[in-house]
Amino acid sequence: VKLATVGAVAATLLATTGLSLLGGRGGERRPAGGVGSRVFVVERETRSLAVYDLARREVLPRRIEGFGDLRHAVMTFSRDLRWGYVATRSGKLSRIDLERLERAGDVEVSRNSIDIAVSQDGRWIATAEYAPGGVTILDADTLEVAARVPAPARVTGIVDAPGNRFVCVVIETGEIWVIDASKPGFPVEHRIRAASGEPYDAMITPDGRFYVVGHLHTDHVSLLDLEHPEHGARTVLLGDAGELYERDTPAKLPHLASWAVAQGRVFVPLVGEERLAVLDRHTWTYQGSVPLRGHPVYAVRSPSEREVWVSFSGEEDDRFIQVIDTATLAVKRTIEVGRRIYHMDFTPRGSHLVASANKDDRLVLVDATTYEIIDVEPLRSPSGVFGPWRAFTIGL
Amino acid sequence: VKLATVGAVAATLLATTGLSLLGGRGGERRPAGGVGSRVFVVERETRSLAVYDLARREVLPRRIEGFGDLRHAVMTFSRDLRWGYVATRSGKLSRIDLERLERAGDVEVSRNSIDIAVSQDGRWIATAEYAPGGVTILDADTLEVAARVPAPARVTGIVDAPGNRFVCVVIETGEIWVIDASKPGFPVEHRIRAASGEPYDAMITPDGRFYVVGHLHTDHVSLLDLEHPEHGARTVLLGDAGELYERDTPAKLPHLASWAVAQGRVFVPLVGEERLAVLDRHTWTYQGSVPLRGHPVYAVRSPSEREVWVSFSGEEDDRFIQVIDTATLAVKRTIEVGRRIYHMDFTPRGSHLVASANKDDRLVLVDATTYEIIDVEPLRSPSGVFGPWRAFTIGL
Repeated sequence: VKLATVGAVAATLLATTGLSLLGGRGGERRPAGGVGSRVFVVERETRSLAVYDLARREVLPRRIEGFGDLRHAVMTFSRDLRWGYVATRSGKLSRIDLERLERAGDVEVSRNSIDIAVSQDGRWIATAEYAPGGVTILDADTLEVAARVPAPARVTGIVDAPGNRFVCVVIETGEIWVIDASKPGFPVEHRIRAASGEPYDAMITPDGRFYVVGHLHTDHVSLLDLEHPEHGARTVLLGDAGELYERDTPAKLPHLASWAVAQGRVFVPLVGEERLAVLDRHTWTYQGSVPLRGHPVYAVRSPSEREVWVSFSGEEDDRFIQVIDTATLAVKRTIEVGRRIYHMDFTPRGSHLVASANKDDRLVLVDATTYEIIDVEPLRSPSGVFGPWRAFTIGL
Repeated sequence: VKLATVGAVAATLLATTGLSLLGGRGGERRPAGGVGSRVFVVERETRSLAVYDLARREVLPRRIEGFGDLRHAVMTFSRDLRWGYVATRSGKLSRIDLERLERAGDVEVSRNSIDIAVSQDGRWIATAEYAPGGVTILDADTLEVAARVPAPARVTGIVDAPGNRFVCVVIETGEIWVIDASKPGFPVEHRIRAASGEPYDAMITPDGRFYVVGHLHTDHVSLLDLEHPEHGARTVLLGDAGELYERDTPAKLPHLASWAVAQGRVFVPLVGEERLAVLDRHTWTYQGSVPLRGHPVYAVRSPSEREVWVSFSGEEDDRFIQVIDTATLAVKRTIEVGRRIYHMDFTPRGSHLVASANKDDRLVLVDATTYEIIDVEPLRSPSGVFGPWRAFTIGL
């Protein structure tokens, strides 16, 4: 049989049976959506990924299983939306076929990986390692290890950056590293000292300009302007100098999400305080704060940048989302979603928000215009929520 | 044979033969990429769509043919990346299967359609009609006509907007219409008078906040704040009041692309003048202009918002792209790409730019870091360039 013929037959069969492949109730409701419709949800305890189909508004019957330790696991996507990648605390990196919804390649990259990024040109995957310290770089097509960039300590907060760079932070030495993924050997182009205090995580702004590092038990973060790495890292205070300030309040960065950068401002959840700090987006100076019902964990901007949605820690508050108006800086709505909200993300045009309520074992879809909960799906201990639009977003 | 078994067989066959389905040289180079890697290029004269695979850096052998009149045709994508949609000047709307790369449904929606949008919830497709005047709304799953919203004249510039709205402009009556796609019957919620001068096209800002209408033979545009439609449309001047100004210089909006909204500024190509006008993003006041080598056509922001890339009209200039630094407002680079550049777009993380050079029958891939041309592909009379990331972008 000629390959072309087999291919045509396969395509016809798949077209007629595709619904039963991916969904249990083909034809009864809206058909299962394509790759762009599939939101992957980490089920931490069972080390599995569930797939929520946004078009169909249901969890697909095919779960993906057999991962390593998925605590704090982040999923990233190939630029062509053919693959997903998950790095795990047991050091195993798994590739996921986004069409067939199954694991399609596992590599032992380290003893303990904490973070993952894909280069802007799509050719390289980088994982940040707790043990042994360093960065491992893999070929995105073959999954072969292309380079090991050793570090003297644990590495975290790895992101892609403009100019085909990777940026990460070395925890025990307090250094920000910029790695050039366009050059053979993946040289560390810059090693920049961060502010005082042990770094524990980092992020990049959505425009790829600033790399921000959080430090344990401090009231500041480090800020590196990636357009001018030669200027070094600045220290940015998360409170007004005139304010009474608990010096040992932890200023914690969320692990999975960015701070919300919206409408000329940066909204920073201060763990241990019942407020969001508000910084000026351009000068990074403190502008004030938004009082909240509890201790914020995540602040996520709506794609229109008109709102920031905030989740909380603590039994009293962790079932609520508060919606901040970015023009008035006031809380405009409080929505009860489910206990222990671990993660949330907007659909890319902002029509809906997907949130995991870990303690209630559910995934919730919220209409972002009416603030109504329009779908609730049972899941096992859900945490991170990862939509395919991350493939097209700097730093995700 | 049970459906599940057939499905599994089909999936296996497709996995082993997928390369030969889509590409001619499977295995020789990098494998053909997934849906996220496929850029669709309108070939106007042959009424076909060519597919450029970004991962593979080649045009796939499978062209899609049999469209209506593709002059000024815009392609939009379903939210789940299963389908593309093209509305044509002959009134035929075609749906394209993004996986199989073939037409999968044609509907005669009008005698002459000019523009197309998908609602933010993904359920509805709207086409703007020149003849008969009005908007046709189709069910995105079944392609059945769900409603016809008649207008007394030609309609253009249709976009999706937050709150599941469609916004468009009625040319001869000079009205901006806001249609509520969440309500049965698709009511026209607002009819707002635009500024003087015949509207000819419109756009929405990337945050979905402002709708901008261009008027023939004027030095102004209309601006509607969609958060406050009750305030009506404002007139925004494209020149300084103190400047000498040709009153009948056409202030032409590009048809396919937005003006470039970057770093707090709006960059407006003024057709007939050798400059970009620069407006303040928040107040919409005129700030100044950037002198250019010729008459600009498109201004496209890089995803990092650090640069705006500009194409030109006129034989002397239309083979060049000029790169503007959005911080200094100076031209930092001029790149020769090919004659009569009709359209261009960045890949979503900004690593590359894809441009069509119509008169040279070529598609060009530019490395946006080094400004080098790294791939040139022969195409037939290429014009519009449409990447799947449009599925995840407000207004595209």
